[in-house]
Amino acid sequence: MRAIVIREPGDPSVLELGEMERPEPGRGEVLVRVRASGVNRADLLQRRGLYPAPPGVPERIPGLEFSGRVEELGPGATRWTVGEAVMGLVGGGGYAEFVVVHEREAVRVPANVSAEDAGAIPEVFMTAYDALLRQIGLTAGETVLIHAAGSGVGTAAVQVARVAGARTIGTSRTAAKVERAKELGLDVGIVVADDSWPAAVLEATGGRGVDVVLDLVGGAYLDGNLRALAPLGRQIVVGLTSGRKAGLDLGRLLSKRLTLVGTVLRARPLEEKIALAREFEDRAVPLFETGRLHPVIDGIYPVWEAAAAHTRMEADENFGKIVLSWE
Amino acid sequence: MRAIVIREPGDPSVLELGEMERPEPGRGEVLVRVRASGVNRADLLQRRGLYPAPPGVPERIPGLEFSGRVEELGPGATRWTVGEAVMGLVGGGGYAEFVVVHEREAVRVPANVSAEDAGAIPEVFMTAYDALLRQIGLTAGETVLIHAAGSGVGTAAVQVARVAGARTIGTSRTAAKVERAKELGLDVGIVVADDSWPAAVLEATGGRGVDVVLDLVGGAYLDGNLRALAPLGRQIVVGLTSGRKAGLDLGRLLSKRLTLVGTVLRARPLEEKIALAREFEDRAVPLFETGRLHPVIDGIYPVWEAAAAHTRMEADENFGKIVLSWE
Repeated sequence: MRAIVIREPGDPSVLELGEMERPEPGRGEVLVRVRASGVNRADLLQRRGLYPAPPGVPERIPGLEFSGRVEELGPGATRWTVGEAVMGLVGGGGYAEFVVVHEREAVRVPANVSAEDAGAIPEVFMTAYDALLRQIGLTAGETVLIHAAGSGVGTAAVQVARVAGARTIGTSRTAAKVERAKELGLDVGIVVADDSWPAAVLEATGGRGVDVVLDLVGGAYLDGNLRALAPLGRQIVVGLTSGRKAGLDLGRLLSKRLTLVGTVLRARPLEEKIALAREFEDRAVPLFETGRLHPVIDGIYPVWEAAAAHTRMEADENFGKIVLSWE
Repeated sequence: MRAIVIREPGDPSVLELGEMERPEPGRGEVLVRVRASGVNRADLLQRRGLYPAPPGVPERIPGLEFSGRVEELGPGATRWTVGEAVMGLVGGGGYAEFVVVHEREAVRVPANVSAEDAGAIPEVFMTAYDALLRQIGLTAGETVLIHAAGSGVGTAAVQVARVAGARTIGTSRTAAKVERAKELGLDVGIVVADDSWPAAVLEATGGRGVDVVLDLVGGAYLDGNLRALAPLGRQIVVGLTSGRKAGLDLGRLLSKRLTLVGTVLRARPLEEKIALAREFEDRAVPLFETGRLHPVIDGIYPVWEAAAAHTRMEADENFGKIVLSWE
């Protein structure tokens, strides 16, 4: 099969179209012919050699998600029929013509979403759904601060938080992204220019602070987040684009009685990935079909232009998801 | 009434016996004649001017807990009769002959515990009970790491964790304290001499790490705690004896999917203090009466020797609680 392969660690030019061995579906697994695969920041890190693939995953093919059609059923697989439209997460290898997943990890594509657009759903919506609803328990009437509100996860989180009845405050370093996030339903937008954004968050909440922070930025924002949180506030960190080291003021953590949670999808064991996939299909897929959720797509590139796609994300120019398509 | 008063911020010699105005019980409150009051590290900080009393609390009288007898009922107070033995938390003012609390904040003294010994119960057992059972949800079969296992909170936490069916690993910088903690039921004791204790914790858990960390040390132990935690582990920080600033490796927080919680009792609003008091009376007081829990007392000092009591705690010489008594 064809696949985008990392020739060696480096800049986007190391991505090249190559021939790789097609995977075989094992017991309970399905082979999926990929139509589209979203680009994620983790792919950029993996390309630079900074985020190695976990054991059992193709080392040189990036890609953490896919949409496509079931091509072949492994022994004992009964959940799908050949030709059905599915999407989902993979530990790697998504930039390929075929992927193999356990049949219970695959999620049906919402009826009203195209196969290409569906490639933009799994990683960011499952991350936002899992982080905000399953882990942090965001509930109606709460206020949530979403950093990088114009990113893939950010645009998904704004929508998920609105569905949950929460008030949303979003940040971006780019004014135009804040404006576009407002069109998605973001209630309050803050353009981050310097260290004054925590004060802006406090002002937007009458001095009280936010109940929840969804952070994809990491180190540079930690102290500001603790200042922006209300007493008993919870923060979940899903990404570290600004780096992993941070100074933590434990005094603030104690006096405000805060909770700080780290999460990642890729390294989870099979049973947890399945549990999330099944719940997401039951609860989130119908929300796409009623129009409450929708993938936000910055652009669709042919897979052989993966380098251009990476370059755009690395320059932080995208609003929403960049998708690679095989057609 | 008589009370121990902080003459000015400073060393233990600034504590002196003085005359202060006796508080009046308001609506729904009770006046308690104090028999004993435990000494806490927060008292040492307050004495040094580093931990000011919250609004509405005597500024110059330290003391966060008491045991004694109900002396007088405020208007509308019906829960207790005069003379009943009660104990509980106060925001300050515990080193006095009288304290006032809401009648629903007072907790009955276990039938088999003396009035003096009961002065050692509220702060450390309510902290350990609240942190381990209500907040972190420690459950049977889990392993918990308890730092400063010879401290007041440490000795309480070892007992609470055992009641919950958890395996306990405790640390202390003093070998003799580790041995005494084992007599309380501590399963594994680690003497902290340098930075190798996280490796000892991993070894004691077959390389997996602990499910829960109860930390009273703070800054200096944070990174080691993250290393000692198992995937999906939870840490609750109830004290900061080593300082409030710490370097946090968010990468570890994410990859292990850890939860970090800060907590404090003193600053909580009335309704939360009541909720904890009522639950503690219902669930923990009977455990003292069946002998599953018991106060661990380092020594009982007459209140006028409060300076000596502070000196002993400041030197970290105590195992368990130091109590001040009015008799």
